[in-house]
Amino acid sequence: MSPLPAGSVIGILGGGQLGRMIGSAAARLGFDVHIYAPDDSPPAARVAALHWQGTYDDRDTLRQFAESCDVITYEFENIPVETVEFLVSLGATVRPSAKSLETSQDRLTEKRFLNEIGIETGAYEAVDTVSDLETALEALGARGILKTRREGYDGKGQVRLKTRDDLAAAFDAIGAVPAILEAFVPFEREISVVIARDADGNMAAFDPSMNDHSGGILRTSIAPSGLSDTIIAKAVSMGETLARETGHIGVLALELFVLEDGTLLANEFAPRVHNSGHWTPEGCLTGQFEQHVRAVAGWPLGPVTRVFDVEMQNLLGEEALAPPESFGADAVVTLYGKRDAKPGRKMGHVVRRTGRA
Amino acid sequence: MSPLPAGSVIGILGGGQLGRMIGSAAARLGFDVHIYAPDDSPPAARVAALHWQGTYDDRDTLRQFAESCDVITYEFENIPVETVEFLVSLGATVRPSAKSLETSQDRLTEKRFLNEIGIETGAYEAVDTVSDLETALEALGARGILKTRREGYDGKGQVRLKTRDDLAAAFDAIGAVPAILEAFVPFEREISVVIARDADGNMAAFDPSMNDHSGGILRTSIAPSGLSDTIIAKAVSMGETLARETGHIGVLALELFVLEDGTLLANEFAPRVHNSGHWTPEGCLTGQFEQHVRAVAGWPLGPVTRVFDVEMQNLLGEEALAPPESFGADAVVTLYGKRDAKPGRKMGHVVRRTGRA
Repeated sequence: MSPLPAGSVIGILGGGQLGRMIGSAAARLGFDVHIYAPDDSPPAARVAALHWQGTYDDRDTLRQFAESCDVITYEFENIPVETVEFLVSLGATVRPSAKSLETSQDRLTEKRFLNEIGIETGAYEAVDTVSDLETALEALGARGILKTRREGYDGKGQVRLKTRDDLAAAFDAIGAVPAILEAFVPFEREISVVIARDADGNMAAFDPSMNDHSGGILRTSIAPSGLSDTIIAKAVSMGETLARETGHIGVLALELFVLEDGTLLANEFAPRVHNSGHWTPEGCLTGQFEQHVRAVAGWPLGPVTRVFDVEMQNLLGEEALAPPESFGADAVVTLYGKRDAKPGRKMGHVVRRTGRA
Repeated sequence: MSPLPAGSVIGILGGGQLGRMIGSAAARLGFDVHIYAPDDSPPAARVAALHWQGTYDDRDTLRQFAESCDVITYEFENIPVETVEFLVSLGATVRPSAKSLETSQDRLTEKRFLNEIGIETGAYEAVDTVSDLETALEALGARGILKTRREGYDGKGQVRLKTRDDLAAAFDAIGAVPAILEAFVPFEREISVVIARDADGNMAAFDPSMNDHSGGILRTSIAPSGLSDTIIAKAVSMGETLARETGHIGVLALELFVLEDGTLLANEFAPRVHNSGHWTPEGCLTGQFEQHVRAVAGWPLGPVTRVFDVEMQNLLGEEALAPPESFGADAVVTLYGKRDAKPGRKMGHVVRRTGRA
């Protein structure tokens, strides 16, 4: 595919804040944006030229959407693979491909894939029954985190376990669905590699940020991460391997644990722009949203040089309702246009430029 | 008015690229944007939550628009004053007020107003007839630029004159409408002061840029301007006087001629974000579009520190259709989503960061 000319239509599956920020970046480059999402007036649809409202198995609406778009991308990883495959069967170009999506949707498949391509993870065990869980817990040293294989995000569908816990109750708590038990990883810090790969295979990684989670939800990302050049180079190389091996076109994010001795273990990856890259539009010459659009549209990637030291802080629930001046004069505020500030819900973020890079 | 909370609706009169960029900035701050414009699917409407399509005297549609908005602004200065007055009569808050609009819509009123508040301009004469034109031309030294008092932009409705020209034909050429003859100003360079004033009267001016016009259309803006601190301070002070005296809320731009001896003469002002400020989102900590939204929404102004040396180049007509890589890796490209790349039409712009400030 040659570079999409301005005026082309970029379709986005999903209507959340990531779609909103991808959509705004696409508009800046002269594209029209069509959002496909089941909800009524989701955040992304309110900055887009058109909203196709339909469920992900509504083939009539999907068909019209496909016909209206020059290229289609997605903003979250729980889009059904069948939806993407159906769009492709209609002749649509979907970037990234279903492979990135499919691999990342299932924690077990994902970790096995990462290991296969040489990216080390923490230890883990498949859990399909309470009996599996007992065995797994023993194998992983009497502690672990039980997670559903599919559809968990922001700490949902997870439970921390020790041997003496009521394992049957824990398995029930996550819905008694196919699961994975992950070993506790005694990490010193968490980082992520946000990397773009274009249609020709060129790659550009942002400086990895140091991330702080609380209750399974990202609270802050800081760049630089404070890690040595050696560790950063290794992390970036892992991101490159992943992008190459999935044949990814667009941005992806690889979350990594850094152990005290510098060992890097992959936690998970997202086949999309990522919360831990929200500082990039303010911190780098090109931001992750524009970069994703460039890759998807067949444009050359932009320069990712980091020009500021930054701290990104998520605004959860009512934090986003604070008076604008309370964020401080130097805070760049992004709010997602969500109507309902439920506790813990990601409502926006602020980026503070703490120095020149 | 206390600061508008996120989720409020900002209405924009006008659907062009300035509305598009204001709208995107407003969405970033969590606002919903409603565009009021007569055209079918104008650039701004394609990044907005809603498009009210109506003419500027369509009172029914204007009424619905007013009812849907928490604050209304405008993106170009040829919105009829009556439209703004009607919206205000309905109880709508319109920022900036009709005064900024009214003053800038008529070149004669504008220049007289500037002179009244102590801002020097080049010499000019009112021209209502061919006979006026003859007298005026003599008074201004046998040369001048004849401009319609109203509705000219980007060099339209203008004709350069010398004594021996056919004055009747020239007056006919601009439509034989009320006009102004402006003396040629032997300027050394052109600059502009883009300045924001908030609802409390606080002001923040961007570093003035040096502007290059060709055929009446802005081609490039460069910051820094290369002028001395003394001249810059004087220019900014003129911008402040103008913003204060018009009681402006929002961004305005004052175009100035710089003579060889450092004298500053006002050319004209625009009561809105301005093409010569298009480098500010990439060059400064806050860009002019966000700054305008902040002022209009009753938010505190953002910091305007310039952090890069920049060059902004307009993309006219088919220049915008060049392959993306031809703009260069360091060019930040903004395209306006206009369908028809007519010669001379402003289709987009690129900003190049040429150094750290």
